Amino acid sequence: MSDEVNQQPKLWTGNHYNEGIGRDDIFDKLREECGVFGVFGVRDAATLGYYGLHTLQHRGEESSGICAVDSVEGTFNYHRGMGLVKEVFDQKTLESLPGDRVIGHVRYSTAGESKLANAQPLIFKYRDGDLAIATNGNIVNAPSIRRELESQGSIFQTTSDTEVIAHLIARSSKDFVNAAKDALQRIIGGFAFLIMTNEKLIVASDAHGLRPLVMGRLDGGYVFASETCALETVGAEYERDVQPGEMLVLDRDGLKLDRFEKLERRATCAMEYIYFARPDSDINGINLHSARKRMGQTLALEAFVDADVVTGVPDSSISAAIGYAEQTGIPYELGLIKNKYTGRTFIQPSQELREKGVKMKLSAVRKVVEGKRVVMIDDSIVRGTTSLRIVNLLREAGATEVHVRITSPPFMNPCYYGIDTPDRKELIASQKTVEEIRQAINADSIYFLSHDGFIDSVGGNDGEYNRGMCLACFDNDYPTPVDPTSEKSCSC
Amino acid sequence: MSDEVNQQPKLWTGNHYNEGIGRDDIFDKLREECGVFGVFGVRDAATLGYYGLHTLQHRGEESSGICAVDSVEGTFNYHRGMGLVKEVFDQKTLESLPGDRVIGHVRYSTAGESKLANAQPLIFKYRDGDLAIATNGNIVNAPSIRRELESQGSIFQTTSDTEVIAHLIARSSKDFVNAAKDALQRIIGGFAFLIMTNEKLIVASDAHGLRPLVMGRLDGGYVFASETCALETVGAEYERDVQPGEMLVLDRDGLKLDRFEKLERRATCAMEYIYFARPDSDINGINLHSARKRMGQTLALEAFVDADVVTGVPDSSISAAIGYAEQTGIPYELGLIKNKYTGRTFIQPSQELREKGVKMKLSAVRKVVEGKRVVMIDDSIVRGTTSLRIVNLLREAGATEVHVRITSPPFMNPCYYGIDTPDRKELIASQKTVEEIRQAINADSIYFLSHDGFIDSVGGNDGEYNRGMCLACFDNDYPTPVDPTSEKSCSC
Amino acid sequence: MSDEVNQQPKLWTGNHYNEGIGRDDIFDKLREECGVFGVFGVRDAATLGYYGLHTLQHRGEESSGICAVDSVEGTFNYHRGMGLVKEVFDQKTLESLPGDRVIGHVRYSTAGESKLANAQPLIFKYRDGDLAIATNGNIVNAPSIRRELESQGSIFQTTSDTEVIAHLIARSSKDFVNAAKDALQRIIGGFAFLIMTNEKLIVASDAHGLRPLVMGRLDGGYVFASETCALETVGAEYERDVQPGEMLVLDRDGLKLDRFEKLERRATCAMEYIYFARPDSDINGINLHSARKRMGQTLALEAFVDADVVTGVPDSSISAAIGYAEQTGIPYELGLIKNKYTGRTFIQPSQELREKGVKMKLSAVRKVVEGKRVVMIDDSIVRGTTSLRIVNLLREAGATEVHVRITSPPFMNPCYYGIDTPDRKELIASQKTVEEIRQAINADSIYFLSHDGFIDSVGGNDGEYNRGMCLACFDNDYPTPVDPTSEKSCSC
Amino acid sequence: MSDEVNQQPKLWTGNHYNEGIGRDDIFDKLREECGVFGVFGVRDAATLGYYGLHTLQHRGEESSGICAVDSVEGTFNYHRGMGLVKEVFDQKTLESLPGDRVIGHVRYSTAGESKLANAQPLIFKYRDGDLAIATNGNIVNAPSIRRELESQGSIFQTTSDTEVIAHLIARSSKDFVNAAKDALQRIIGGFAFLIMTNEKLIVASDAHGLRPLVMGRLDGGYVFASETCALETVGAEYERDVQPGEMLVLDRDGLKLDRFEKLERRATCAMEYIYFARPDSDINGINLHSARKRMGQTLALEAFVDADVVTGVPDSSISAAIGYAEQTGIPYELGLIKNKYTGRTFIQPSQELREKGVKMKLSAVRKVVEGKRVVMIDDSIVRGTTSLRIVNLLREAGATEVHVRITSPPFMNPCYYGIDTPDRKELIASQKTVEEIRQAINADSIYFLSHDGFIDSVGGNDGEYNRGMCLACFDNDYPTPVDPTSEKSCSC
Repeated sequence: MSDEVNQQPKLWTGNHYNEGIGRDDIFDKLREECGVFGVFGVRDAATLGYYGLHTLQHRGEESSGICAVDSVEGTFNYHRGMGLVKEVFDQKTLESLPGDRVIGHVRYSTAGESKLANAQPLIFKYRDGDLAIATNGNIVNAPSIRRELESQGSIFQTTSDTEVIAHLIARSSKDFVNAAKDALQRIIGGFAFLIMTNEKLIVASDAHGLRPLVMGRLDGGYVFASETCALETVGAEYERDVQPGEMLVLDRDGLKLDRFEKLERRATCAMEYIYFARPDSDINGINLHSARKRMGQTLALEAFVDADVVTGVPDSSISAAIGYAEQTGIPYELGLIKNKYTGRTFIQPSQELREKGVKMKLSAVRKVVEGKRVVMIDDSIVRGTTSLRIVNLLREAGATEVHVRITSPPFMNPCYYGIDTPDRKELIASQKTVEEIRQAINADSIYFLSHDGFIDSVGGNDGEYNRGMCLACFDNDYPTPVDPTSEKSCSC
Repeated sequence: MSDEVNQQPKLWTGNHYNEGIGRDDIFDKLREECGVFGVFGVRDAATLGYYGLHTLQHRGEESSGICAVDSVEGTFNYHRGMGLVKEVFDQKTLESLPGDRVIGHVRYSTAGESKLANAQPLIFKYRDGDLAIATNGNIVNAPSIRRELESQGSIFQTTSDTEVIAHLIARSSKDFVNAAKDALQRIIGGFAFLIMTNEKLIVASDAHGLRPLVMGRLDGGYVFASETCALETVGAEYERDVQPGEMLVLDRDGLKLDRFEKLERRATCAMEYIYFARPDSDINGINLHSARKRMGQTLALEAFVDADVVTGVPDSSISAAIGYAEQTGIPYELGLIKNKYTGRTFIQPSQELREKGVKMKLSAVRKVVEGKRVVMIDDSIVRGTTSLRIVNLLREAGATEVHVRITSPPFMNPCYYGIDTPDRKELIASQKTVEEIRQAINADSIYFLSHDGFIDSVGGNDGEYNRGMCLACFDNDYPTPVDPTSEKSCSC
Repeated sequence: MSDEVNQQPKLWTGNHYNEGIGRDDIFDKLREECGVFGVFGVRDAATLGYYGLHTLQHRGEESSGICAVDSVEGTFNYHRGMGLVKEVFDQKTLESLPGDRVIGHVRYSTAGESKLANAQPLIFKYRDGDLAIATNGNIVNAPSIRRELESQGSIFQTTSDTEVIAHLIARSSKDFVNAAKDALQRIIGGFAFLIMTNEKLIVASDAHGLRPLVMGRLDGGYVFASETCALETVGAEYERDVQPGEMLVLDRDGLKLDRFEKLERRATCAMEYIYFARPDSDINGINLHSARKRMGQTLALEAFVDADVVTGVPDSSISAAIGYAEQTGIPYELGLIKNKYTGRTFIQPSQELREKGVKMKLSAVRKVVEGKRVVMIDDSIVRGTTSLRIVNLLREAGATEVHVRITSPPFMNPCYYGIDTPDRKELIASQKTVEEIRQAINADSIYFLSHDGFIDSVGGNDGEYNRGMCLACFDNDYPTPVDPTSEKSCSC
Repeated sequence: MSDEVNQQPKLWTGNHYNEGIGRDDIFDKLREECGVFGVFGVRDAATLGYYGLHTLQHRGEESSGICAVDSVEGTFNYHRGMGLVKEVFDQKTLESLPGDRVIGHVRYSTAGESKLANAQPLIFKYRDGDLAIATNGNIVNAPSIRRELESQGSIFQTTSDTEVIAHLIARSSKDFVNAAKDALQRIIGGFAFLIMTNEKLIVASDAHGLRPLVMGRLDGGYVFASETCALETVGAEYERDVQPGEMLVLDRDGLKLDRFEKLERRATCAMEYIYFARPDSDINGINLHSARKRMGQTLALEAFVDADVVTGVPDSSISAAIGYAEQTGIPYELGLIKNKYTGRTFIQPSQELREKGVKMKLSAVRKVVEGKRVVMIDDSIVRGTTSLRIVNLLREAGATEVHVRITSPPFMNPCYYGIDTPDRKELIASQKTVEEIRQAINADSIYFLSHDGFIDSVGGNDGEYNRGMCLACFDNDYPTPVDPTSEKSCSC
């Protein structure tokens, strides 16, 4: 018994995801589920939220939302909608969200689950007033908590597991902060939380710091974001990453540090380093452009191949391709180019047109690759369908050889912490040998960055952080108990 | 601590209600709060819902919604939006709502409270699956029930009191039907309820039948509607009015009659007869065009005045004006005409323009009224501002005398059962004598239909129904306990 | 070789006219083609234009447009769009049209021909600056003039015949006023013209005054409109009807009266009196509600039938039905009711649903007509399909007899002066006898108002105006030469 | 006397360009005025047009349009709108454009001139049927031709100079092809033309080949585009560049080569090589990524500076930066990152916010540039304001030195051939010495690529093409007569 929510405004229901065209293009890429942004104690907080969320847009393109607390009255005002930040908000809407405190959210979801009702921040009314929650990540034990709550008579408004947090808080007899602390202790998973009431803001990261979350300072107030690039955009000064198991409480009396869980080993999602986060962001002090460039350099050391041209699959593998080129001396070229205008309303070419040569959003540059041996750098291979398509694009444009180099180990295990991954049996690396993958994607050679090579590349010279990653998608070593029968990989 | 919900799609947020122009035009008319429509066991139920709700549009122009149960899977699909039925739904949306069971809703709300989050049907997920509720009316004791539920940890998603029903059901240890029965017994007020689960539909009317609700048959299935005109539109055959305190349960086994309250005196809202319901609808077997014509005839008998022309304030007072004209022999004329294109997006003329003569949506017809003594029939006077404006329109168009005749007794007391009425101190009839009202609206004479004349007009020759009305707005005799400190007059 | 223009904004292309449902409902009604409105020398002219055109909306629902001349610079600003006035214009758009001079237009067109490119006012740039033209009516000899102009190298931007006027003016070696006068002399047909340059406004009516056009005064300036109701709305004082063959020239020096044609017999379109114009408008001093009421009275005298109820087909036949009822003493009742919310985006019921009883926008009121002998008043019968449907609605609602009374003589001949009429062979009155029509529409009796009865009803006691109508659709006596092979009946 | 056209659909009129924020960001970048795309003799031509224009979107983001000729009837169907290709067209619209022949257009214009009426293809009706014209470029002598045509009675519908071509053709007594040839001979300037009638397509490039235009083959038919990348996208095989002075005529009999002007020296716009065209396009056989990389290499040879990091201003200067890095051995890094989601509806930060540190669409990557000496590669400097802002971004992010290297000679003279350039007095290079520019943009050093270095970089080893560029913006040597008093730089 499920619930199909269809609250989208009539005007843009006609989106093309429903038509099944371009499906595997869309699905053969891992998707970050969400980005969060919060402001406490800075004037025009909603406008800062607009710029912050816009900067985090790559973490979720499907819906956007901001909830603001009016500084004078303490009342909530919010706006959520389907679409990009720039589409959901206009000047007038921002003006309707006065105050110096906001939490905001951008969300990705697959087409069928794209629902305005699930758009965050989620808003609740309970005994003590209003409650708004924005989250990035997934609560592994949400289904069982939800069943328990429902059996006690709780009503849910969304399919989002985030809602269990609100119920746990509302049903507690403790004050808000302690109720929230209890709730955070009960849930297991990978998550970054912003929880706001009429008076307080709680910022929390799961016990392993699986999802990134950083704190900055601006004009005497505080800014929180999934990535440092959003701090930079609003002019905030980076202060530090929120620590695993930490719970920050902000109210009229300022910031109070607390934790709901003692610090265990850090296990930040490896795919954030490889693919999700913007290259100009830093995670745990490591800049991602630099880390990716080192991955390319390490790849070059581990798997050099004689070639004429190095090219990266845009946009995520440009840094690594530059590193590979620098290390090998093979020229880096724009062998693949992406149309930057392609977006939600773009009509994907039909199968017939694609077979006739109409290109999807990526083109190979004939003059650059024609007659050349090409090293093609990519960040990961999920199902293999996109890789096959890109290799073929290069061959059709005249590449004589295509050598695929991947900046991560083989992706073999699903994520339970907020990454939208297909079933294990659809993950090509869990089903085929490396040689079989090479054949499947029509490459002349293929190489996946080694486990150690990857860790070294991320960590640079500093050993501390290396041990700080969740590598479960590569090595099946999940930092928390997981439920392998669960289909859900995201709470938001 | 209140909550301003701003989920409207960006595109039409710029509505002109915010600008404060035309305010008193909008507010000096009583507003029905809602209309409901349900189908059980008829193919293409959502399309029938579309036509049914469109026919009930006069009961609520602000938001529309339909929730359908898929006949095969029992799953919920729904769509709600701000705007008229024809704006909220298109062919594609209706097709996304398959099944033979729906409940639907149209809703009026004043500008500031116009919120998509409160749009009905409200949808909940609870222990036993999905729950959808559409209601017309008001629960007088909802605030206290809500406080009790919140103190037990319940979370609310809306400001709508309707939500308490869902919580009462979800928290009950009984099965759905008995839980709903308990819930209906706990609440006090005037309401028509449609409550749908994945398998059942419950239809209920409050203990006094304050809000109209009728049942029809179509193609072996059932249709429920606030008014008979909606049955007519979809080709359903009227069967009977739902009785006060009745609870109909529909499921795979058909229709089962039950009641949650023993039948007391019927007390159907008098304003439904006077103004709200469409003239082609019947309530308790009485056609409203005919009833209103009789009100006009009775007015003529009670308060004849020598005049040249009878005119009615469109659209609601046309029937009564015809009755007055027939009874007196004074010709009925179109002395006032309403622009049928005026709607939500219409830009109301500014105060400056109105003073310069730019007309609001109503015009007086100069050639009809110039040099004439005019009898102007209207259904009620709330604050008096609109009446003053219309009388002045007629005078500016050359009427030499304007005699106002009102088809109801003076409206003196607020409604607690789903009619949006201003505070008592803004009700002109509770503040002024009839003579003072005459002066305030600049009429040559004024007369309000007598209490008995009104009852007789509605009932015609049949005494049974006369005793069946709630006349509290005229005589302060409320059929239930009410809380005079409550500002809320509507649950939906 | 035709041209399909598709400039509509993407968002509302999905209109339902294309789907072929409800077609004959839409097409079995004559359609006025346009309304015009102009202001010269009044502040905020565009806002007045908004209200004026809104009041003329019944003359054209498909597109709206306003062109303003900036008072200081003399520059043109304009806005045109598909849709109702309230949909095409918002506050911001009106503010972008500063100045004290505007011409505006509302336009009806059948679905297939609904084109933004043809939306008026048409705007041109020529030797002497800018030129804007708004027209209501049709130029009979436009095709031959257009061929001549094209052979001389003229380029056309629209399929609208109105464009020939602009070319005739641009190609003349005379000054603007004399060039316009020459152009008006060359064209034959029925039309009301507003022609605006950066400095002047020319207002003209065809040689027979076929299309209505009135002048009013406001704040020292001038207002022109197709109907007096638009003068009333903006607070302008009616001055007089523009006379046949007259050409008014307005500029900095005020108003100058001229004529391009000597005054011949007036021949104002009879259908304006019967159906098109709003009941609160006056044409040539005759109020249309009153005229239509007299038509009903005359019908009663010519063709009384014993019955229980008189009802009019809304909205156009209400006045006549009241007249018939008054004259006969048979009660007037709301036997038919129209849903006022039905509009462009409304989804018409499918044939299957209609057969199952789902009603189109009109409903019969069962309680009013059940068991009754009904006199049904309508204004005209075109193809007969709508009449059949309405008669059947009444019978299904229980009417025992339905007597159809039509307030005009049989409509037998197409119009060449701006009314969208079907081919002669589709006009039921030109193909069948009255008795055959009665059978075709399933009526118990039928009567068309006599030729003389119609003329008398319009004229009242005053003989002057009677001779002033074009009755060609009834008697085939066209006031100008016409081209019977022409399909075109409208220039706008 | 000018004309402000406001035909935009109401819904997105509220664009932020009007607000004056972010103005100089927008204006301190040269803008290509248009892109054209044509198909002759390929099934589903409109869909190919959609993909082709989407690929040319960087040449014009303001409006898009496609005109198709129905293969059976020879009739025109077209659709034009304000916005990106993906916004203006949907599946339904494309389906309304059947046929195997289309011409299409994307257009840039500055805010104030952004008008739907000027959106191309322009459509005309004339003696011989329909005429559609799409153009990229500018007609230098259009104003005088227009004045002449107007004096002969021609009416213009747009402010676009392209319209003169249509008038010249319509007024000619010759057949279409010869009339078009005459017209092309009369006009002076830089342009690529697609001219379509119901039967023929004419493709023409100006006498000097100022604007790029290429021809490809697909499925037995022909494809024409401003750039080769659009051929690639639709799967067409590049055949050759259209030659200066060439006029290709396509009709039922196939392709006929003709010329309206004898071949003179080729003078293709240098800025196409430097900045406008996509890096994956080839012009005159030269790939632009490769050419730009060579510019970077040449810059390195001409103006090496010791530094830690090379970065390019995205997106146009990435290729050159890579070339500079390769040549010097200084690592190439992503020191600047552009938000790819920023677009028309994005709310630019206010001046106050910018001063407080809220970034425009470009960010400097702190970890990459902090404490580093940075070489910043850019393609050109127009006013200098953007360069100053970027240098400051780098400094605020911690760069210790910023050395600016420009891949073109100083831009000193306005363009009259279709590039939107400011007045000469606003061109910083025409007002200041290089040292003054360095100071103005706060750089540690600055260097503009030398005239010869630029020519060598474009031409590679092949001397033929070097002589083939228009370098007037650098050296004031215009290939045609120009009118220095003209403000107009673009016909489209």
